[in-house]
Amino acid sequence: MTDMREQGLALDPKYDTAGLVTAVVTDATTGELLMVAHMNADALAATRATGRATFWSRSRGALWVKGETSGHTLSVREMRVDCDQDAVWIIAEPAGPACHTGARSCFYRRIVTEGLERVD
Amino acid sequence: MTDMREQGLALDPKYDTAGLVTAVVTDATTGELLMVAHMNADALAATRATGRATFWSRSRGALWVKGETSGHTLSVREMRVDCDQDAVWIIAEPAGPACHTGARSCFYRRIVTEGLERVD
Repeated sequence: MTDMREQGLALDPKYDTAGLVTAVVTDATTGELLMVAHMNADALAATRATGRATFWSRSRGALWVKGETSGHTLSVREMRVDCDQDAVWIIAEPAGPACHTGARSCFYRRIVTEGLERVD
Repeated sequence: MTDMREQGLALDPKYDTAGLVTAVVTDATTGELLMVAHMNADALAATRATGRATFWSRSRGALWVKGETSGHTLSVREMRVDCDQDAVWIIAEPAGPACHTGARSCFYRRIVTEGLERVD
C-alpha cells in the first residue's frame, strides 16, 4: 500500500484524522509561496473540477472557494502530490493578493534573530 | 492577539493540538517546492540555531535532522512565517535529493485527469 501510494500513478490522498491534506500554493509566474491551507476530498474534487482552488476552512468548518468574496481567486495551472500523498502542491495564477491581509503572499514576514521583519 | 500575531514582529507560532506547525521547504536556487513536513517548538529552535532544517517526525515521534543519515541536509537561507503563524516557509539549499525516494522533490507526480503522471 505504501509502495503503491509512493510509486504508483493512482491518486490516493492520505487524509489525516480530520479528513484533510495540506495544500501549498505557489505563484505560477514568480514561483513565490503564496499560502498554505487544507483540503478535504470535496475541496480536492472541486478544485480539479473547476480549476479554481477550493479549500476546507477549519475555522468555519465549510468548503471555501478561495476568492469567492474578495475576487482574489487562484486559477490552477498544475497540481502535484507528494510522495506519501498527504500534501498537494497547487501552482496557480492569483487574481489578486493571496493573503486576507492584502499582502501578495501570506508569508510577508521573515524570521530573524530578534523575531520577525516585514518583507516587501 | 490575532492582530498581534498577524501584524506584529514577534515570532509567536500557532502550534496545533499536537504542538506542530507546517513547514514548507523550497529550493533557494530553483524555487521548486521540495517537501512539506512539521515542526514543533524544539525543531524550530534547532533549525534557527543550527541553520540546518530540523523537523518533528510524526511517524517516529522524534526530532529529525533532515539528512542526518542520508547526508541530504537542507541548509537554511531564509525562513518566513505566514499570517496566522501556523506555517513556516524554509528557503534552503539542498545537499541532495530532498525526497527519501531519491527524487529531487517529494512532489514528483502531477495530478492529471486519469490519476498521476511522473514529472521529470
